Amino acid sequence: MKVAVVMGSKSDFDVVKPTLAILDRFGIERDVRVISAHRTPTEAHRYVEDAEKKGVEVFIGVAGKAAHLAGVLASFTARPVIALPVATSMMGGLDSLLSMVQMPSGVPVATVAVNGGENAGILAAQILSVKDDGLKKKLAAFKKELAEKTAKADKDLQAELLNL
Amino acid sequence: MKVAVVMGSKSDFDVVKPTLAILDRFGIERDVRVISAHRTPTEAHRYVEDAEKKGVEVFIGVAGKAAHLAGVLASFTARPVIALPVATSMMGGLDSLLSMVQMPSGVPVATVAVNGGENAGILAAQILSVKDDGLKKKLAAFKKELAEKTAKADKDLQAELLNL
Amino acid sequence: MKVAVVMGSKSDFDVVKPTLAILDRFGIERDVRVISAHRTPTEAHRYVEDAEKKGVEVFIGVAGKAAHLAGVLASFTARPVIALPVATSMMGGLDSLLSMVQMPSGVPVATVAVNGGENAGILAAQILSVKDDGLKKKLAAFKKELAEKTAKADKDLQAELLNL
Amino acid sequence: MKVAVVMGSKSDFDVVKPTLAILDRFGIERDVRVISAHRTPTEAHRYVEDAEKKGVEVFIGVAGKAAHLAGVLASFTARPVIALPVATSMMGGLDSLLSMVQMPSGVPVATVAVNGGENAGILAAQILSVKDDGLKKKLAAFKKELAEKTAKADKDLQAELLNL
Amino acid sequence: MKVAVVMGSKSDFDVVKPTLAILDRFGIERDVRVISAHRTPTEAHRYVEDAEKKGVEVFIGVAGKAAHLAGVLASFTARPVIALPVATSMMGGLDSLLSMVQMPSGVPVATVAVNGGENAGILAAQILSVKDDGLKKKLAAFKKELAEKTAKADKDLQAELLNL
Amino acid sequence: MKVAVVMGSKSDFDVVKPTLAILDRFGIERDVRVISAHRTPTEAHRYVEDAEKKGVEVFIGVAGKAAHLAGVLASFTARPVIALPVATSMMGGLDSLLSMVQMPSGVPVATVAVNGGENAGILAAQILSVKDDGLKKKLAAFKKELAEKTAKADKDLQAELLNL
Amino acid sequence: MKVAVVMGSKSDFDVVKPTLAILDRFGIERDVRVISAHRTPTEAHRYVEDAEKKGVEVFIGVAGKAAHLAGVLASFTARPVIALPVATSMMGGLDSLLSMVQMPSGVPVATVAVNGGENAGILAAQILSVKDDGLKKKLAAFKKELAEKTAKADKDLQAELLNL
Amino acid sequence: MKVAVVMGSKSDFDVVKPTLAILDRFGIERDVRVISAHRTPTEAHRYVEDAEKKGVEVFIGVAGKAAHLAGVLASFTARPVIALPVATSMMGGLDSLLSMVQMPSGVPVATVAVNGGENAGILAAQILSVKDDGLKKKLAAFKKELAEKTAKADKDLQAELLNL
Repeated sequence: MKVAVVMGSKSDFDVVKPTLAILDRFGIERDVRVISAHRTPTEAHRYVEDAEKKGVEVFIGVAGKAAHLAGVLASFTARPVIALPVATSMMGGLDSLLSMVQMPSGVPVATVAVNGGENAGILAAQILSVKDDGLKKKLAAFKKELAEKTAKADKDLQAELLNL
Repeated sequence: MKVAVVMGSKSDFDVVKPTLAILDRFGIERDVRVISAHRTPTEAHRYVEDAEKKGVEVFIGVAGKAAHLAGVLASFTARPVIALPVATSMMGGLDSLLSMVQMPSGVPVATVAVNGGENAGILAAQILSVKDDGLKKKLAAFKKELAEKTAKADKDLQAELLNL
Repeated sequence: MKVAVVMGSKSDFDVVKPTLAILDRFGIERDVRVISAHRTPTEAHRYVEDAEKKGVEVFIGVAGKAAHLAGVLASFTARPVIALPVATSMMGGLDSLLSMVQMPSGVPVATVAVNGGENAGILAAQILSVKDDGLKKKLAAFKKELAEKTAKADKDLQAELLNL
Repeated sequence: MKVAVVMGSKSDFDVVKPTLAILDRFGIERDVRVISAHRTPTEAHRYVEDAEKKGVEVFIGVAGKAAHLAGVLASFTARPVIALPVATSMMGGLDSLLSMVQMPSGVPVATVAVNGGENAGILAAQILSVKDDGLKKKLAAFKKELAEKTAKADKDLQAELLNL
Repeated sequence: MKVAVVMGSKSDFDVVKPTLAILDRFGIERDVRVISAHRTPTEAHRYVEDAEKKGVEVFIGVAGKAAHLAGVLASFTARPVIALPVATSMMGGLDSLLSMVQMPSGVPVATVAVNGGENAGILAAQILSVKDDGLKKKLAAFKKELAEKTAKADKDLQAELLNL
Repeated sequence: MKVAVVMGSKSDFDVVKPTLAILDRFGIERDVRVISAHRTPTEAHRYVEDAEKKGVEVFIGVAGKAAHLAGVLASFTARPVIALPVATSMMGGLDSLLSMVQMPSGVPVATVAVNGGENAGILAAQILSVKDDGLKKKLAAFKKELAEKTAKADKDLQAELLNL
Repeated sequence: MKVAVVMGSKSDFDVVKPTLAILDRFGIERDVRVISAHRTPTEAHRYVEDAEKKGVEVFIGVAGKAAHLAGVLASFTARPVIALPVATSMMGGLDSLLSMVQMPSGVPVATVAVNGGENAGILAAQILSVKDDGLKKKLAAFKKELAEKTAKADKDLQAELLNL
Repeated sequence: MKVAVVMGSKSDFDVVKPTLAILDRFGIERDVRVISAHRTPTEAHRYVEDAEKKGVEVFIGVAGKAAHLAGVLASFTARPVIALPVATSMMGGLDSLLSMVQMPSGVPVATVAVNGGENAGILAAQILSVKDDGLKKKLAAFKKELAEKTAKADKDLQAELLNL
């Protein structure tokens, strides 16, 4: 098990699905859990200690509003913690974002875009690739594929423009 | 010991001083601590359990930026928790405020104004007064005093205006 | 009668329903009223004085936009006043939130999240529990139940993941 | 007495001084008071009723943060109420502004810029000029004077540019 | 003709309808126009001068986004100008609001809430009532009616609560 | 005369100085004026028509708060208009920025950063360079110079780091 | 080829369509491309150099969120670059807007309103008109047409009002 | 060389100093450069390719306002890129933050708090520790030290409180 994806509420699962798709694509083992910073705080503590023992090397905390989950994970581990803020009806996730990214000195979390589930997965893979040359190659291939998709979209557009 | 005032960093002490002044004025016992949600999370847990046993009935969490402290306290107790957001250079404390007030369903904190140290103390006293008629009377007297101060300020203004 | 729930407009009733559900669950008597800070200000004054005499110990003010209702209630009583900001189409309730939480020194209100109706009810119960050990136990049970719901959601997720 | 200028705190007096200077310039009688929406709410009520009887035709409410004062004045009178939001350290007065301008349907206040003391006075004069042709002429003259000042500033700039 | 209602685009007409309903209710003559600060600026100038001659005493400028219309009207007249900001998809009208309310010293506009069409009409009536005792009485009656509506809503709620 | 720099108030001159320095560097003739959208609107109209006749090809409007000046210039001309928002104490210039950039369809202004005086000048030069190959070369040289300054700063940093 | 319209993602094409309609109306040749600042950065570089050689005189960069595209284009050319921010679900495009307009000294982009596709096209035409008197006339005609449309809308409104 | 710290301007060096102090403390080799996304974009490209070859495994991009630097680095590498937003006078760094964190799908950056220089360094160390058990131990020791500092601050506070 390499990456632990922890969401504060099961309702965040849609935001997490692209994270899992990316981790699966890169063949990265992962654990996916619903643990609430506010409702099950001792489980959060227990889980982090346990996960470290089982070899988790990157944590991803997914939460919305007063989104403390990533910070809580980071308070219990010195492993890299990725913060994935969830969009909210109030401020489109600006509240989630600020609750995550503005961490005090000493306890960073690595924040990605609001609802940026895919990017959370890619960042986790990039971090793990530091010690995994196979993963480095997969990420390079993924990057090339992204470029090709954009080039393809450009080509499609040219065709559409001709037909306008 | 009735009220526990917990600040995330000793640098928040200036914001807390008016809280202590109010609690002292109302003769309310209090414990004042520096405990960080992110640096000493297990101490936060231990302290809340301990404080409850020693009779703490209201908690005040004081923090800035990704201000999780009040939420962390609330995750360990069903006693009322007051959240006192500290002003920040980034957004004047809007980040602290949103990190505190936007708590998920089930785990409220009672948020006061940014840097509203005095109000945190008054709110704690109001909560304790629910079972303390002497405190109710002191709060009524305090309220009257506030009104008299404003009336005095009005009178002073009239005098100043005559001399302009 | 222990808790007075006052909304500025009958259109806020949907936000208030979870508040009432919580108060009912905890067996807390409550009065529910539509009183507008701006349309029926003298009724607001009269009601607060009356409610105090009838034994109301916590007020909840529910309002949106330039949301003055909680502050108006607090101007007439030294009992704890909970402010429940209602979401708005303009800024998702940020206007309501700032109009409530930024109260001047001397007259606090205890602000919960935008549309945080359930939390307003729980906070009221927490405050009343200061003098009611039965309520303390109910709140502890509620807290345990919340944790169990999250644990259940986690278990459900694990099952779903197996079937993906 | 034609205009009542009410500030929520004596510390707002610096913002009010340009209001008074304008009213004096236009020869408009005014009453200047410190009355707090939250500390002296019954005085606010009493004052508005009294002021109307004494012939006040325009009210100006000056306040900061959760700035309810103008709304409170407007709740007690159908005369025009001008809202003058005071700058705050938290959000530069955005909190004051939103607390004032977002009034519910039925009870408007006429909001001017944050710390816009002079404009509050000019707007009051414009309102009174509806029934006062002398005042209309003074306002036209003031407008012309403003234009001349800008023209003068332009001329000064040309001179400075030559000497650069 | 007493009140000129000027909207920047015909698409703002829905926001203006409640303004007209209020003016009609109070028997106030009004002119309603589509004039754009940016597309027909000379017409804006011509119209203001013309309107003043025809006896317009209050202007209402209705616009969204970089909402300059009220300021443009105010640049050509010393009569009171009401600014009615229109909600936008970008920031819910915060852009419109700031473009209107933050006017420089010397040229105020009286800003009401975003999409506050009814309040723009009531404020215009309040301003005109300065010289019209009949209108003063109508406004007092309207205010009483508002209070009665709220009281009625409260009574309806009590009935609904019994049936829950 | 090629570029007209118009500021709403002489107090904006400090923001404009870097604009003038750039225009001078590129040998671009310019007119610099203080004309207020709100205080001298007819002068704004007259000036734009006049300036066009005298060969002005780019306008720069400089203003703060409810910053209408660039939009007013654009309402009178189809020449490119650059909007330079001035920082404000209220929201750091966010109000100025939104008042400028959110122009309605049909009447664009080319907005640069808050207090971005130098960039306003460079953009004007870029626009004029469309028909001036000499200017194109100067801009290319300027761009190269910028790169060299950054390279120099990098070199200086390396030296400093050695001495730390 | 005179104008290069570059969008960061094919999903931005709806925002770009009004830009193309305007450019077509004015008979301005244009190239339309999908090139991502983050996915195909070397293509961005290659394209800008190529486009300049082929005679592109104005670039339009269209992007959302952390919208770097216009800045990337501007980093490779001294031709005028127009930035067209795309609305986002998070903050209505405020994130896109700030990512574009707040460019550092030396490298301006000419920012238009969020989703302001038509204005991006008009601004491009205005810039090209600096050396094209035919285009100047077309823009003057377009401006007159806009005014006539507004006048027509006003006339329609008068008819509707009669029938209400 | 393990970590590349790239700042957009030498004026960002003060924000970077705590990053270097942390990297030095952990004995992590680093390269520190001034490279501008907008002024020296080809150098940015060249540098990233070069750095990867020399063994850089984590990049840190430091920039303010329309802060594209981290995104530009990420566009050229699949190694983890940390984004360190610099505070600005306009919005306290909210512009920098949004320009960095809201990256499109496929190209993440790991964003830390505004001016969070120390946290950028710690996060880099955490990422490198994935393959370095010695670093893992140092990070655990650092975490313990942080906790001890907070405990010491708490003890100091207790002493101060006795002397008040």
